[in-house]
Amino acid sequence: MKLLHTLCQIAAPSGNEAPLSEYLLNYIQQNKQSWQNQPTVVYGEEFQDCIILVFGKPRTAVFAHIDSIGFTVRYGNQLVRIGGPDAESGYRLVGQDSQGPIECTLIVDERSGALSYVYSREIERGTELTFQCDFRETDTTVQSCYLDNRLGVWNALRLCETLQDGIVVFSCWEEHGGGSVAYLAKYIYETYGVRQALISDITWVTEGVHPGQGVVISLRDSLVPRRSYVERIRRIAQAAGVPHQLEVEGSGGSDAKELQHGSQPWDWCFVGAPEDNVHSPDEIVDKRDIESMLALYQVLMQKL
Amino acid sequence: MKLLHTLCQIAAPSGNEAPLSEYLLNYIQQNKQSWQNQPTVVYGEEFQDCIILVFGKPRTAVFAHIDSIGFTVRYGNQLVRIGGPDAESGYRLVGQDSQGPIECTLIVDERSGALSYVYSREIERGTELTFQCDFRETDTTVQSCYLDNRLGVWNALRLCETLQDGIVVFSCWEEHGGGSVAYLAKYIYETYGVRQALISDITWVTEGVHPGQGVVISLRDSLVPRRSYVERIRRIAQAAGVPHQLEVEGSGGSDAKELQHGSQPWDWCFVGAPEDNVHSPDEIVDKRDIESMLALYQVLMQKL
Amino acid sequence: MKLLHTLCQIAAPSGNEAPLSEYLLNYIQQNKQSWQNQPTVVYGEEFQDCIILVFGKPRTAVFAHIDSIGFTVRYGNQLVRIGGPDAESGYRLVGQDSQGPIECTLIVDERSGALSYVYSREIERGTELTFQCDFRETDTTVQSCYLDNRLGVWNALRLCETLQDGIVVFSCWEEHGGGSVAYLAKYIYETYGVRQALISDITWVTEGVHPGQGVVISLRDSLVPRRSYVERIRRIAQAAGVPHQLEVEGSGGSDAKELQHGSQPWDWCFVGAPEDNVHSPDEIVDKRDIESMLALYQVLMQKL
Repeated sequence: MKLLHTLCQIAAPSGNEAPLSEYLLNYIQQNKQSWQNQPTVVYGEEFQDCIILVFGKPRTAVFAHIDSIGFTVRYGNQLVRIGGPDAESGYRLVGQDSQGPIECTLIVDERSGALSYVYSREIERGTELTFQCDFRETDTTVQSCYLDNRLGVWNALRLCETLQDGIVVFSCWEEHGGGSVAYLAKYIYETYGVRQALISDITWVTEGVHPGQGVVISLRDSLVPRRSYVERIRRIAQAAGVPHQLEVEGSGGSDAKELQHGSQPWDWCFVGAPEDNVHSPDEIVDKRDIESMLALYQVLMQKL
Repeated sequence: MKLLHTLCQIAAPSGNEAPLSEYLLNYIQQNKQSWQNQPTVVYGEEFQDCIILVFGKPRTAVFAHIDSIGFTVRYGNQLVRIGGPDAESGYRLVGQDSQGPIECTLIVDERSGALSYVYSREIERGTELTFQCDFRETDTTVQSCYLDNRLGVWNALRLCETLQDGIVVFSCWEEHGGGSVAYLAKYIYETYGVRQALISDITWVTEGVHPGQGVVISLRDSLVPRRSYVERIRRIAQAAGVPHQLEVEGSGGSDAKELQHGSQPWDWCFVGAPEDNVHSPDEIVDKRDIESMLALYQVLMQKL
Repeated sequence: MKLLHTLCQIAAPSGNEAPLSEYLLNYIQQNKQSWQNQPTVVYGEEFQDCIILVFGKPRTAVFAHIDSIGFTVRYGNQLVRIGGPDAESGYRLVGQDSQGPIECTLIVDERSGALSYVYSREIERGTELTFQCDFRETDTTVQSCYLDNRLGVWNALRLCETLQDGIVVFSCWEEHGGGSVAYLAKYIYETYGVRQALISDITWVTEGVHPGQGVVISLRDSLVPRRSYVERIRRIAQAAGVPHQLEVEGSGGSDAKELQHGSQPWDWCFVGAPEDNVHSPDEIVDKRDIESMLALYQVLMQKL
């Protein structure tokens, strides 16, 4: 889990994904020789900080967002949310401005809910703060900030090791309104004719989804995917005997929002491990669910 | 009204429009010989469950959504909404899971508003339920669930009988966040250069819109269409002497949302009969408004 | 400020921008001979009421929306908002229906917040009303309705006088859900390869943004722009010595929403003067901020 630990430590809130994008490009460069098949690596200014890996003759694309939630320093010691982070007084935040690295403490006003920081000096306006990474591993679990979605990124990178035909996409801005998948989806559809997607992301432990019972196939969240595509995925998972759970939610979203609303006829399904303590510094995932997530992606990319 | 009755009975909630799409393809195949002009029928995986009919040299496209509102079975006996159905304890719901067909009863918790079903067994997670169709016709009215938008679909099919130049589109997901019109609009604009749209859908009886006073031309809902296009439609309706009413709302939406926000310069206008008991099993429409709706579409498709 | 005064007086609420579009086309026709470089003027039905000016070899596009907030007459004397106008009983509204020009008074029901008008006769359903323009100029300020965004339009027109390479876009519907920037952005990217944008619009005076302290560079509003692009803009502004302020907000939006969510990889930044009394008939801007806004646009279009 050394790779996952490293991924969780790199600050890359929505809009400033460049540091993680650079790390991934280096990682891909250094590791792809050990992968069973060599991908074409698509990146550059026309893709902002996103990366596309194309293996063989692709039929399906995996989307893993690389950005995280966080906070922006507003005026005085005020903070504004990036995405929807959990906020509790005492959470440790880190960042950097022109005066140097920052480690400060989050304060939530009990009455107004207003967010601020406590620090030895004023932090420069517009500075981004993210959760300080406290990575904890046991025999059965991993726990850290930003498992959502560094675990989805980790899953995508591990998938690359054996992938024959398929596309792996590292996207931006998912936690804060989206903004990259629309053009990534257009490029992929127009260049490769691919319109099947899997969303490699992390979902929630709920009354119907339990840790350790397998990767989640989401039948719906705030959006309803095309039924016939989701049914194909369920059948493949059953036939392969990969432990999995079915999720039905009325809220929540993912990169799939942009696929659903874009100008190409994408079929999509969210497939990911569930976590507890969502969007906090203490996100926790059962290792069995990580294992079944990767196993299901491997079989889906072959069978879909 | 036999066709309308059949259309209202077919379950096709957003995301699972395939059954109605198949019915329509069969209907078109069996009936188009009796139409004055033969359309090109565009469909297939690249259009998911949507259908496009192209007649002659088109200048205007009619959009009729084929999906309906409904409910998804969540965990235990919980239900989650598909779109915005009206919910009252006692409504009869139907569906199907691997154990067979289902007829159950909707329950709304008075305090929390939470939705559930009562049935002799547990229904499988993710199963879709729709209103049981009780189709009622009098000399002056039709009443059923899903007149919104099976009546808009019926209007589009009847329009096909005499249509010379134009496009008729059967779209998906309108009731639940959209997701097909963006690519349909792109395809139509890029293939045929068409950028004028009419939304064949059902609106609301309100203090300003009354049953029996004619089809509604909507001057705005939550979105504001381009004034110059709406004015042309008003002038054509007046010149033709088709009974009609003008609607002005601050809320509500339609397939036009995706036209307005898409990457092509569509002009659009919502033109449809008003109904009462919106999104309930008892939607009711005055037959005179159905008649003027079809009449106005016939003249608009000639004059626009 | 005669040009700004004229711009503020022309009624062009979202959806009915045609009058201002016509004025601008005439203005461009009559004034472009005095500009240092001659642009290609792109307009016509395929751009609805928008206008694109292309100078030299463009690298960056400036977006200025020409629509304004307002009200639509509903049923009886009811009004519905176009965009988010401030509403206070007594505000003077103007419009026109088939019976002639209208000057009436806005009424806000204290309990329900419902909007209505008082006038000597009933105004026709669907008529648009806008604030009556009371343009006030002092040595240090301008004050009027619709400085948002006629001042952004004015800035764009003044920029044209000396612009060598760049694109100036006059867009529609910004105040009410958007609807033109998606296709404008597509056209510009596909035709000219341009993907850098500046949003020439007006922002808010707040606890962190003060009148007279310079044009605002917005580090974020409800959306978070790509950090690396905003940093380039900050560096150019600093190097040029143009007075400016940094804004950090958690709400608010602009034409950038459509750039962020569209199918092209646009980088964008909101750069504009701050105003007080936002969306009221009494919007007020400090002349020093107008001056630094134009100065910053001139340098950014050279350096970006």
